Amino acid sequence: MDERMREDPYPFQAHLGLRVVEWSQDMCRIELPVADHLMNRHANVHGGVYASALDTCMGYAGCWTGDPAQVQLCLTLSLNVQFLSRPKGVLLIGQGQRTGGGRSTFFAEGHIMDETGELVAKGTGVFKYRSGGGA
Amino acid sequence: MDERMREDPYPFQAHLGLRVVEWSQDMCRIELPVADHLMNRHANVHGGVYASALDTCMGYAGCWTGDPAQVQLCLTLSLNVQFLSRPKGVLLIGQGQRTGGGRSTFFAEGHIMDETGELVAKGTGVFKYRSGGGA
Amino acid sequence: MDERMREDPYPFQAHLGLRVVEWSQDMCRIELPVADHLMNRHANVHGGVYASALDTCMGYAGCWTGDPAQVQLCLTLSLNVQFLSRPKGVLLIGQGQRTGGGRSTFFAEGHIMDETGELVAKGTGVFKYRSGGGA
Amino acid sequence: MDERMREDPYPFQAHLGLRVVEWSQDMCRIELPVADHLMNRHANVHGGVYASALDTCMGYAGCWTGDPAQVQLCLTLSLNVQFLSRPKGVLLIGQGQRTGGGRSTFFAEGHIMDETGELVAKGTGVFKYRSGGGA
Repeated sequence: MDERMREDPYPFQAHLGLRVVEWSQDMCRIELPVADHLMNRHANVHGGVYASALDTCMGYAGCWTGDPAQVQLCLTLSLNVQFLSRPKGVLLIGQGQRTGGGRSTFFAEGHIMDETGELVAKGTGVFKYRSGGGA
Repeated sequence: MDERMREDPYPFQAHLGLRVVEWSQDMCRIELPVADHLMNRHANVHGGVYASALDTCMGYAGCWTGDPAQVQLCLTLSLNVQFLSRPKGVLLIGQGQRTGGGRSTFFAEGHIMDETGELVAKGTGVFKYRSGGGA
Repeated sequence: MDERMREDPYPFQAHLGLRVVEWSQDMCRIELPVADHLMNRHANVHGGVYASALDTCMGYAGCWTGDPAQVQLCLTLSLNVQFLSRPKGVLLIGQGQRTGGGRSTFFAEGHIMDETGELVAKGTGVFKYRSGGGA
Repeated sequence: MDERMREDPYPFQAHLGLRVVEWSQDMCRIELPVADHLMNRHANVHGGVYASALDTCMGYAGCWTGDPAQVQLCLTLSLNVQFLSRPKGVLLIGQGQRTGGGRSTFFAEGHIMDETGELVAKGTGVFKYRSGGGA
């Protein structure tokens, strides 16, 4: 990715351990190592972790500008997640794509796989651009 | 709530700072203080936090048994969240209700308010009971 | 309802047999008799019928103006439906409420019951106001 | 498609004008001509029509058996639809795929395009197999 666009992880990203690894026009990829602090009541990754990762990579996908001086922000209006499987590996890899929309709102979809190729979750979202997001 | 049913927070719950404060037949209420580690790219609570809180209280709502020796677990099949507003206060209060279903799957809905009464998010989910969940 | 606001059923409404029976600020109620032409592969009302009825009453709920000369239109951005049960009666009664939003987008939720009180479906939606919707 | 598996359109299918044109393991494609009776309040195809078409092709996608004597039925548990655009053409073409699940429930996704390639809607769903569906 264009390193001039790289941002420091924001607090919740850092708290989860999630990193943005690729970001370009209409696309973002993140990675999140499976770790003890992500586990739910029955020792699997909590569904909210997948929701958080999908929300993150889908939101970034629609906010690429290519210009570090132009920061585009967005708000999630709605998020839908399907929980398909459980990871067999130790690294969650999420990818989001902008799939449509215009200047005020956008649509995105995403998926989470692990490093073995196991598809664990898919998501869709509707987002709203925040005005006044310029640097 | 019936204190015999109280469980230690599981890892992701503890990591977020989320506590179950009420749990009974078909209902669960949680609390989560707004804190720096929950913040997103523009210094608001991350959407994934609301998704995590809703998934948690809706899942518990369908898993009450009233008997600490009978532990009922569930998997989330799908989760839908609407992000209505931002908190004005400092405490997130989430409530989930089981709204239907049978022995194999159940439906739930939930909402997150803050202590000022501001409604910040609503959610719905479809869950599957895990068999062999006995203690 | 204010009869000055009553509209002729539009084509898909008429094709389903759906009628708007109440419409006021942030709320709309519709009725749809269970009929042979609504049936699916196994002789129950098709899920798409509930989705159509929910989309309709939620959309209207956000478009009330109180002034027949001011026609507010909207587009559905996303729709989520949960199918909770099957009707025991012969009349579907749907109600939608606007639950939040602003001048450009709004959130709504709705449910479908039958005349016996059986809750058959619940829905949520995100909608966008169409500009230039004046009469 | 295997013509032995072709079924007469059920009532709501016929009422919409929707035809199944391809059906095989984990996949179904449908076609629905744009027609006056599908129009909404502002003379576009009603959102419920897309929801109905997506529900139909996603449900079929999970119910292929390859054996006309083995009829597999399903119930939709939840349905999510994103409305991306409006058709430029006159024929809606929908495709559904089974994306996961097991013997009791399955996940599917689908999209609706028109004959010009315009992508108008995308959907996801969670479905439950009906037991006792044998012929």
